[in-house]
Amino acid sequence: MRAVVIHAPRDLRIDRIAAADPAPGEVRVRLAAGGICGSDLHYYQDGGFGTVRISEPMILGHEVAGTVIALGQGVTAVQVGDRVAINPSRPCGHCRYCIEGRRQQCLDMRFYGSAMRFPHVQGAFRDELVIDAAQAFPVGPDTPLQEAAFAEPLSVALHAVAAAGSLIGKRILVTGTGPIGCLVVLAARHAGAGEIVATDICDPALAMARKVGADRTLNVGSDPGALAAFGADKGYFDLAFECSGNARALAGLPGVVRAGGAITLIGLGSEAPLPVSLLVTKEITLRGSFRFDGEFAWATELLAHRGVDVRPLLTDTFPLERAVEAFDLAADRARSMKVQLSFNDHA
Amino acid sequence: MRAVVIHAPRDLRIDRIAAADPAPGEVRVRLAAGGICGSDLHYYQDGGFGTVRISEPMILGHEVAGTVIALGQGVTAVQVGDRVAINPSRPCGHCRYCIEGRRQQCLDMRFYGSAMRFPHVQGAFRDELVIDAAQAFPVGPDTPLQEAAFAEPLSVALHAVAAAGSLIGKRILVTGTGPIGCLVVLAARHAGAGEIVATDICDPALAMARKVGADRTLNVGSDPGALAAFGADKGYFDLAFECSGNARALAGLPGVVRAGGAITLIGLGSEAPLPVSLLVTKEITLRGSFRFDGEFAWATELLAHRGVDVRPLLTDTFPLERAVEAFDLAADRARSMKVQLSFNDHA
Amino acid sequence: MRAVVIHAPRDLRIDRIAAADPAPGEVRVRLAAGGICGSDLHYYQDGGFGTVRISEPMILGHEVAGTVIALGQGVTAVQVGDRVAINPSRPCGHCRYCIEGRRQQCLDMRFYGSAMRFPHVQGAFRDELVIDAAQAFPVGPDTPLQEAAFAEPLSVALHAVAAAGSLIGKRILVTGTGPIGCLVVLAARHAGAGEIVATDICDPALAMARKVGADRTLNVGSDPGALAAFGADKGYFDLAFECSGNARALAGLPGVVRAGGAITLIGLGSEAPLPVSLLVTKEITLRGSFRFDGEFAWATELLAHRGVDVRPLLTDTFPLERAVEAFDLAADRARSMKVQLSFNDHA
Amino acid sequence: MRAVVIHAPRDLRIDRIAAADPAPGEVRVRLAAGGICGSDLHYYQDGGFGTVRISEPMILGHEVAGTVIALGQGVTAVQVGDRVAINPSRPCGHCRYCIEGRRQQCLDMRFYGSAMRFPHVQGAFRDELVIDAAQAFPVGPDTPLQEAAFAEPLSVALHAVAAAGSLIGKRILVTGTGPIGCLVVLAARHAGAGEIVATDICDPALAMARKVGADRTLNVGSDPGALAAFGADKGYFDLAFECSGNARALAGLPGVVRAGGAITLIGLGSEAPLPVSLLVTKEITLRGSFRFDGEFAWATELLAHRGVDVRPLLTDTFPLERAVEAFDLAADRARSMKVQLSFNDHA
Repeated sequence: MRAVVIHAPRDLRIDRIAAADPAPGEVRVRLAAGGICGSDLHYYQDGGFGTVRISEPMILGHEVAGTVIALGQGVTAVQVGDRVAINPSRPCGHCRYCIEGRRQQCLDMRFYGSAMRFPHVQGAFRDELVIDAAQAFPVGPDTPLQEAAFAEPLSVALHAVAAAGSLIGKRILVTGTGPIGCLVVLAARHAGAGEIVATDICDPALAMARKVGADRTLNVGSDPGALAAFGADKGYFDLAFECSGNARALAGLPGVVRAGGAITLIGLGSEAPLPVSLLVTKEITLRGSFRFDGEFAWATELLAHRGVDVRPLLTDTFPLERAVEAFDLAADRARSMKVQLSFNDHA
Repeated sequence: MRAVVIHAPRDLRIDRIAAADPAPGEVRVRLAAGGICGSDLHYYQDGGFGTVRISEPMILGHEVAGTVIALGQGVTAVQVGDRVAINPSRPCGHCRYCIEGRRQQCLDMRFYGSAMRFPHVQGAFRDELVIDAAQAFPVGPDTPLQEAAFAEPLSVALHAVAAAGSLIGKRILVTGTGPIGCLVVLAARHAGAGEIVATDICDPALAMARKVGADRTLNVGSDPGALAAFGADKGYFDLAFECSGNARALAGLPGVVRAGGAITLIGLGSEAPLPVSLLVTKEITLRGSFRFDGEFAWATELLAHRGVDVRPLLTDTFPLERAVEAFDLAADRARSMKVQLSFNDHA
Repeated sequence: MRAVVIHAPRDLRIDRIAAADPAPGEVRVRLAAGGICGSDLHYYQDGGFGTVRISEPMILGHEVAGTVIALGQGVTAVQVGDRVAINPSRPCGHCRYCIEGRRQQCLDMRFYGSAMRFPHVQGAFRDELVIDAAQAFPVGPDTPLQEAAFAEPLSVALHAVAAAGSLIGKRILVTGTGPIGCLVVLAARHAGAGEIVATDICDPALAMARKVGADRTLNVGSDPGALAAFGADKGYFDLAFECSGNARALAGLPGVVRAGGAITLIGLGSEAPLPVSLLVTKEITLRGSFRFDGEFAWATELLAHRGVDVRPLLTDTFPLERAVEAFDLAADRARSMKVQLSFNDHA
Repeated sequence: MRAVVIHAPRDLRIDRIAAADPAPGEVRVRLAAGGICGSDLHYYQDGGFGTVRISEPMILGHEVAGTVIALGQGVTAVQVGDRVAINPSRPCGHCRYCIEGRRQQCLDMRFYGSAMRFPHVQGAFRDELVIDAAQAFPVGPDTPLQEAAFAEPLSVALHAVAAAGSLIGKRILVTGTGPIGCLVVLAARHAGAGEIVATDICDPALAMARKVGADRTLNVGSDPGALAAFGADKGYFDLAFECSGNARALAGLPGVVRAGGAITLIGLGSEAPLPVSLLVTKEITLRGSFRFDGEFAWATELLAHRGVDVRPLLTDTFPLERAVEAFDLAADRARSMKVQLSFNDHA
């Protein structure tokens, strides 16, 4: 079968790989849709990010959905024909973090399409995939698999938003309105946020944020002082979600978040200079949010009932063979939000 | 009466000022002991810190205790002769933060000896002080007023430690073992911490940390890699308390705090570069802690019953007239921990 | 002017009372709409509840909205002509609970139309009312004042739901679908609840719960075992909101709430027998929720933007003169949900 | 080897049972000390409690410590000769509760000496015991194994106290000063509680509570109104720990716990009538606390370093052969606190 393999920066190929049979407890899935994530783009453009670099060819992709086509021995939770979103996480179940219920921090995590460990964990952009039955989350017959493939990034947003506690009546700031930022806007709106302001430097991305629920957007590229007015009385926002990974965006948050407020960090950035005295004197909380765990089930259910509507975020879909074209479009923020690949099973 | 007044950097004088009568609801206190705080030293050495600078002469001091000598009309909660620790905070009671019970964030706070607002709030290093009766916390006849004068910095430590939740069984790191760091060690031990490791670059300060409860200390000046071993398995410490205000100390914490762990920031520092990706991927929480509120009552009670013993921290006491000498000693970390002034009422 | 006064059980009269002028900081409001609450009904039907009994004539009512018609000295926050929801709470601002930001627990609370203290606090079912300017929450020119009069009960629901933390993905049970139960359903849906099941013994009330967002309703009067199936695997629901005040409803909750789950008590009931061993072994949390504080502002804003739609809950409106008729209808659960009075200012 | 087996109420026998060899990952321990718990006494006196009843002979005991005498294949974490406290819990590791890190709620828990499931889980009062290596917690060569055998009940107390958050400055009430109540007093003192008041109906038990840290004790048997004075201003105590399992004790708590305060339920009681309106109007939280999980490691470490001193609680030790005598003494609250059995390995 075919797979989308990164060999080196800008060297993305469609390779043929062997298919595997499901072992006991596993199932085989024929993929339908796969979304290109920011980390996929980092591998494609730069061969990785930070200290995480590809050192062998690696299949990309971890935002996928498809149809179960074969069951390993003993599998009863899903059936052949089930249409499923696939959780790309395989925690070990035995380390200190798994034992305490923080499985996204597993010391021996296997996450599809990641070069964090070597040998790398091969990804999910391929015609077929063998997974643990527990990774398959049925969406029902009526949910397009393109929407189901949003379960993974939506889980990331739900993990961040749910950890922030009740959002009722809260004033929210979202910095960075790429796919994750827009999904955070969607999730915050869904969670009853009082007011949502979003910032970015790209107007089409800001327009999308408004479309999916932001009350107001600010282009901090063309107007770098756009947030200044929110600094009065020690700050306007109860909560901020930093989704840009941009050091300047982060540095500006302690000034506009109220005393006792909180900033959730989702965007991966390198070293950022932080105004420590403001964090101290205003008693602001910063908390990192990474991936997800139980939220994958919630995301799947939300998508299955269209409790949140991710369709506006899907810019375009390309057949697997045109992966390079898809990646190039996904890398262009002015022209795209989320770009997906389609596989054999055209959902 | 006499007061310790800062006129300019290094220009500290004993000035004569007029005494005031207590208005209704107020009391007059004859001071006995006053501890020199890091912010007092900043005014003395540099005329301030960050954007906070003296622009008129200001009486220093906010860690004080004394004896009530006169009552304003209607005061019944304290009596003449009561020996009291004095809470230097006067929140407005009406702003959004006071209303929600976060009075240390009052938008109109008056805190003794602070140049944060202009006219500055005059401080408490003077022979007598008129305060609201609600600022007076009796310590009983047996508590030395030198110990009572620790109520303010102990409150700062209790505010930080209590906000961190239960410490039972937890592994704690304290960076910076000046007076606040050592009080955090004392408070963490008092709160049942499982293990306490402390770092500094000054051996006498580290020795004091061991004396008041640290299980182990590390000189990260002479051995910059001393914490490296604590980075295994995503980090050893459940909680860290950053009390040094040093950017390098802070930058090293995300590597040794466990995934899902927390860092409390107490030390005021300028801009510090933070490894954002580590905070995100390890889902670490950073939270600022500033001053105190209800903790002042707890601190007074603890000191009154010697539930924690602050006596080892008191290096020396100087009569008011020798304030310059006292400040110079307080500024020398190798020779001092906490230095106090004594006033007319030699406690 | 006219007022709705309870003199004794079943003795509800329209009395003439004198009008007052607004003192400095106060405003006079001409009322438009007033909702009849369960506590109003208790005074009407039984002269009170529990140990709270009327011992002098008392004006009823605390769910009201109207138009500002006069300003006391110094008022700038609202203007004559502003259409406002009225917060019926007047906390003292100085007791231990006010100081810690838990004003709904004020030791000297004055809450309209309550016999909890003597002299009773007279209520708000009257043509005009003088209030603190801080009790007036403008709703803008487009919000019908009937909807604004829902701000108070909606605040009660928001206080309970927000205190339960994030509801994303959670399975919720609401027992009792009177006005508060239905508002909890609305609030939980607004907060992103995963699934909402509601129970009652009255079919029309259950139909209303479905209309405002319950996924599924169960009549536990006609089918007392309806919840039994939810007891498997230590319980199905993550959170329950007990809004019925019924001891049997409460007693059934520990069996169907999951281990580690929580039950919020809103309904005031008398003594209820609780299966303590289940609470212990399943580590369930029970928490009382009473009135509201900052949530009133959130409720007003939600109603002003119709972020939640309370209109289905309004059964009927009666002119003040027909208050007895209105109370009788409000007392009949089979025929009514929320019944309002209208005043001079026909909103 | 010998084992203490309950056959029927009051029919406690010393039976001979076969010894087992450790499987891979397991170790064999020669027991030294075993504490008699309240549940052991219930089986002895009544054949069980509530719906939990013995329906086949069952070895009692789950508070035990001993010395490792043989290792199964692959065990490296402990060595032959290690002196260990034994965690009697064996969660499944795969159910929904294990996966979310709430292993004490495991749907398939195996806990020594419990008739909750059938076949019953045989207990640990026997000469030798084969356990998973992960159940063995070394205490070092200097800790008497009698003290190590307190790890289990101390874990129960730590689980309850740690879940209550920071205790610094808090006013604590402990109702019921049997072994668990006294361990809660010890744990609360260790965690920095501000003030601890304890109640019981048995003077020797109250004397013990004072010995291990209660500031004040009240005999609510001889003086049923002893707590009344604590009801002023909506209640005195910030937190209460209900350790008696007595319905009257529980019913009295909502009156003396402050508004917004919390009650932790540890004592297993049958149905108790609760004043629901007080819980609601005072917004009190009740939370069940059951067994422990990670706290077992903390308890072992505390005992190993004598961070808390449990020695006063040990009334007497009987050789295994005199188990009936030991149980009879343990059942007499006026004469005993904790009674232990000793085994072959006289610690």
